Amino acid sequence: MREMVIATYRLRLGPGDVLEQKGEQIALGQTVGAWTPVRDAHPEIWAQHRGEVVSVAQEADAGIARVAFPTANCEPDLPSLLTMVFGKVSLDGWIKLLDLEFPPAWLAQFPGPKVGIAGLRRRLGVAEAPLTMAIFKPCVGLSAEQLGAMFYELASGGLDLVKDDEILPDLPTAKTERRLEACLAAAGRVKRETGRTVLYAVNLTGPVDMLRERARRLQSQGATCLLFNVLAYGWGALEALARDPELTTPILAHPALSGGLCGAPDHGMSYSLVLGRMMRLAGADLVLYPAHYGTFPFPAEEEFAIRDALRQPMGSLAPAWPGPSVGIHPGMVPRLLADYGRDVVINAGGGIHGHPRGAQAGARAMRQAVELALAGRPFTEPLPSGHGELAVALTHWGVA
Amino acid sequence: MREMVIATYRLRLGPGDVLEQKGEQIALGQTVGAWTPVRDAHPEIWAQHRGEVVSVAQEADAGIARVAFPTANCEPDLPSLLTMVFGKVSLDGWIKLLDLEFPPAWLAQFPGPKVGIAGLRRRLGVAEAPLTMAIFKPCVGLSAEQLGAMFYELASGGLDLVKDDEILPDLPTAKTERRLEACLAAAGRVKRETGRTVLYAVNLTGPVDMLRERARRLQSQGATCLLFNVLAYGWGALEALARDPELTTPILAHPALSGGLCGAPDHGMSYSLVLGRMMRLAGADLVLYPAHYGTFPFPAEEEFAIRDALRQPMGSLAPAWPGPSVGIHPGMVPRLLADYGRDVVINAGGGIHGHPRGAQAGARAMRQAVELALAGRPFTEPLPSGHGELAVALTHWGVA
Repeated sequence: MREMVIATYRLRLGPGDVLEQKGEQIALGQTVGAWTPVRDAHPEIWAQHRGEVVSVAQEADAGIARVAFPTANCEPDLPSLLTMVFGKVSLDGWIKLLDLEFPPAWLAQFPGPKVGIAGLRRRLGVAEAPLTMAIFKPCVGLSAEQLGAMFYELASGGLDLVKDDEILPDLPTAKTERRLEACLAAAGRVKRETGRTVLYAVNLTGPVDMLRERARRLQSQGATCLLFNVLAYGWGALEALARDPELTTPILAHPALSGGLCGAPDHGMSYSLVLGRMMRLAGADLVLYPAHYGTFPFPAEEEFAIRDALRQPMGSLAPAWPGPSVGIHPGMVPRLLADYGRDVVINAGGGIHGHPRGAQAGARAMRQAVELALAGRPFTEPLPSGHGELAVALTHWGVA
Repeated sequence: MREMVIATYRLRLGPGDVLEQKGEQIALGQTVGAWTPVRDAHPEIWAQHRGEVVSVAQEADAGIARVAFPTANCEPDLPSLLTMVFGKVSLDGWIKLLDLEFPPAWLAQFPGPKVGIAGLRRRLGVAEAPLTMAIFKPCVGLSAEQLGAMFYELASGGLDLVKDDEILPDLPTAKTERRLEACLAAAGRVKRETGRTVLYAVNLTGPVDMLRERARRLQSQGATCLLFNVLAYGWGALEALARDPELTTPILAHPALSGGLCGAPDHGMSYSLVLGRMMRLAGADLVLYPAHYGTFPFPAEEEFAIRDALRQPMGSLAPAWPGPSVGIHPGMVPRLLADYGRDVVINAGGGIHGHPRGAQAGARAMRQAVELALAGRPFTEPLPSGHGELAVALTHWGVA
């Protein structure tokens, strides 16, 4: 019995195209074949290494083909896997890679989330509640001291995590180590004043062959979370971080660039595969992506498919946190909890900083929104006392 | 004067969308802004770090926006650059990144091709002629000895390079070091017998944080060219190879996965940016991509834009070799030379292996086609004597 990875493609069929043939072309072309019959074809090699069409299903002017590939044809990492299932065929017109299914034994070779849902709850001391996170806005050009002050403002308002914006790399205006120092100091102050742990997701950037070393250095300095632009730096870079036994800092994966790979209906790969299954496989503990009720056009079914790929059973891999983002504000919290339950990170930038009374009030409003929603209370006036910042937020942004 | 990178986007406009506003949203959102006005906006930071719209041009239901970004906002590498110009905004509906323009001083921080067109000609001892290359087909499952024998068959037929198929990683059936050994021995035999140098592009694979070390080891073992699936392993991985002063082996960039990023009209990035400008910037010496007359649907204007991005002046960067591929056979050579001139690598798989008399005859036919085309002779019967394999190829595949 050959151990197989099954890839599901959606193909657009032109006049005269036959779905079974298109599937067969992928099964051969991505394993043992060429576009023209090769004289010296070795039957015993074909038997061991050729791909095979598992099933096809015709739609109107498109079709779904499921093709199985022997794991014996690739190395156990995402770059090698992706080259096998989608490398050359990605160029063959209208074709979209929708999903990958893995045999459990092969899956076990991947790191998966090292901290995951349970681990992050332990580090934060938050047993059941959804988590809340804010983004530094603005951030590019601010000094480490200014960012540290912003961290304090947000963290003291009651959030669980504060993250760098993904566009903030290692700039002379706020070197990574310097802003980590400033934000850790602010987190320490919040801990002393309130007893609450607030993590800082610092953006890990730099030459790819030095990332693991940089991550270790940031961890030694006390980093509590690493933000990582996975698609910019590559799947292999995330895998390398996750496979390093010395690195135990949770990794927050950002969806930067994913629209270019996943946004088109007939090309590329599905969001749930890229931001869900593959991020988890490669070792992300928390993944951000646009919520469908936010400011980016994002289909609800894609959002929920990502959520499910991150949390539902997947071999021996731990579940990862879904982080619906972009245009989130406190008035959306009841809807988020209805869609996600409690294992969700609610992440906001403008929806906290844009609060009419400032960022700290915005953080308070978000915290109050989570408490009120968890208590099952309606978001209608008059709100219970102690929810003043939320009331202002709801007047400003409404209830979504 | 701020040093700026200019990004050109094509945007689809919905009802009510104003192109100038969309451009402005990118200029702000990818630098200093958020989706909602932020209380504490710092005017002096805006002045230094904000992006700005350079120009817009309206098309029917779309528009072109050129947006300038301060290089002070990112690190001098492609992952950081791409996060800045396309990270989050890639998710904002129908938007395609068409091109990037760089200030020369900033460009000079990138490695670019270390061997390039002139260097590869020197290594091969081929002063003026176009180069020819064959791909191992089939390859997955063959032993190192079988691949070495195939190398001899192809190389003795008269080619300049032979490459691994991109789907051949470090498999137990033919470990990378073992097949390098076998192919180098075959290349040595061809050198002794014919005096001709034939390079072997061996596929560089493995954990991303070990790639540089592996490349150095393969180079020590005598590797003459490295095949690299750049989009699978990441831009940063190519940059790391190119920036390593110890590594002087030419790098052949494969377009695997590029269809997923470039194939859609309204999402992702243009082929000429990804396979042309960025590959060259990151250090590829030779780039493969589909020719428009091959078996993959590929627009001629995309193909020629890649060609031009690889060869035309680009700051201080050396030019790189264009490698039109996929479905190439000897009958296409006159057309290829008309489109490319002499600085081109003609790359064929099935168009060599599928020759009715076998792979060595296919290699001879390709060599004969180049000689005949260079001599300006027509590809019509009767061919001059000594062109028997070409005559068979033309009967089999025709003249394209």
